[in-house]
Amino acid sequence: MSDYSPFDADTAVTGAGPRFQATISDRWAVGGGHANGGYVLSVCLRALREVLDRPDPLAVAAFYQRRVLPGPVEIEVDAGRSGRRLATGGARLLQGGQELVRVVASFTDLSQASGPTEVAGRAPNLPDPRDCLDLFGELPGESGLAAPGITGQLECRVPRLPGWRQGAPSGRAEAEFWMRLAGDRQPDTMALPGLVDMAAPAVFELGHFLSTTVELSVHVRARPAPGWLACRVSTRYLIEGYHEEDFEIWDSAGRLVAQSRQLALLLN
Amino acid sequence: MSDYSPFDADTAVTGAGPRFQATISDRWAVGGGHANGGYVLSVCLRALREVLDRPDPLAVAAFYQRRVLPGPVEIEVDAGRSGRRLATGGARLLQGGQELVRVVASFTDLSQASGPTEVAGRAPNLPDPRDCLDLFGELPGESGLAAPGITGQLECRVPRLPGWRQGAPSGRAEAEFWMRLAGDRQPDTMALPGLVDMAAPAVFELGHFLSTTVELSVHVRARPAPGWLACRVSTRYLIEGYHEEDFEIWDSAGRLVAQSRQLALLLN
Repeated sequence: MSDYSPFDADTAVTGAGPRFQATISDRWAVGGGHANGGYVLSVCLRALREVLDRPDPLAVAAFYQRRVLPGPVEIEVDAGRSGRRLATGGARLLQGGQELVRVVASFTDLSQASGPTEVAGRAPNLPDPRDCLDLFGELPGESGLAAPGITGQLECRVPRLPGWRQGAPSGRAEAEFWMRLAGDRQPDTMALPGLVDMAAPAVFELGHFLSTTVELSVHVRARPAPGWLACRVSTRYLIEGYHEEDFEIWDSAGRLVAQSRQLALLLN
Repeated sequence: MSDYSPFDADTAVTGAGPRFQATISDRWAVGGGHANGGYVLSVCLRALREVLDRPDPLAVAAFYQRRVLPGPVEIEVDAGRSGRRLATGGARLLQGGQELVRVVASFTDLSQASGPTEVAGRAPNLPDPRDCLDLFGELPGESGLAAPGITGQLECRVPRLPGWRQGAPSGRAEAEFWMRLAGDRQPDTMALPGLVDMAAPAVFELGHFLSTTVELSVHVRARPAPGWLACRVSTRYLIEGYHEEDFEIWDSAGRLVAQSRQLALLLN
């Protein structure tokens, strides 16, 4: 069982293009009992990869129209152009015949990318994960955040506990931390688009704990090296309840491997 | 003719859902003679708005699979969920029966948005447009950049000429400037998603002048006030030819009205 990965098992699809079947697992549930949006996106990408026949999602956009509950879903895939470099297609995820999520993605073979490189940003400046704290670990006077849902599928290490985790949001919607999938599942380009939506939202530090994603776009910039992922999240503009969230993932070799932005809406 | 707007005329669609017709004008051509991606997106949004029946594009993602040439196109629209707040749908733009661009968008009525507001970023710090230079104006020894294409449809005002415009790219892929549609066409939420892709790319300042968009996502954050738009553009990560470009548009009242990110690929 050492090779068993809940992420791979729970994102598996059956069937053949244009129509695939999958089962949304309750192992990736968030507070309300519905499935995390990054996990749902990962299921759609498994179906798209079957049809687009390239190894790496390069650019991905997901529109969340309704929450997805644990249980069976169908994914209808519609292939667009398949060119020399990129193959593009769309997916609609349906539950009980109703469209819940719509995804478009361009896949490529990132090992073939070649061109100029010039990097102006820097990796998060984090201490070694072994010197960090477990974000989901037990605090004095509580029994930890560990739940049957998504916090059981991720490990997060922080240099110090964020304000929201101690009941005192800091007012600054930004954070840097380590993240990895639970177990020994190493990161790859299929896991990155989901991971950008699996950490604690930046608006937790503004005291807002209920937010729903309208749209998430992800750019995968390189195949990640094995090991912990250094993450940076921020929200700069909360306007009438709507807010963007920017997310960067850097691999253990110090390279940017994914960048995302989502538009989300506060529900409280 | 004072109310005549090339933008409105050239983005018009005819027909009825699910299939619309439009004519791509050569007035929005870029260097290679093909149409600017922001303009093409605006045509698709005109078709989507017909079907989704909400006034404001809120979140938009466009996947550019092949260049669009001036001439007739068809736009096939596919409506998804229409909820209380959002209506979502997809559009495929075809030329000669071939899919060139795929768009998904969620529309809403932004006048109904209400919720907490907390803004951490700031508007570009620019002198009055009357004290700025015309980016496309004539320089000593040349006859200006003004061409029959897109530079004739936009006005750009800069505090000082960027390095690339003087033959000496600065090496810093960032800029702040004023922009507006030519003539008296005031900005609105239908114009913003196109405008984020119409200015000079940030990578010009890295000495790269040929770049093609893979994916563009835009979030419209508010209805803009009339007048000039203050813009901020930057590229931080150029990796093997692929680079993101982040774009912000602030209105004349100093409010953020649109945010975008695109993934593009250098061609030279």
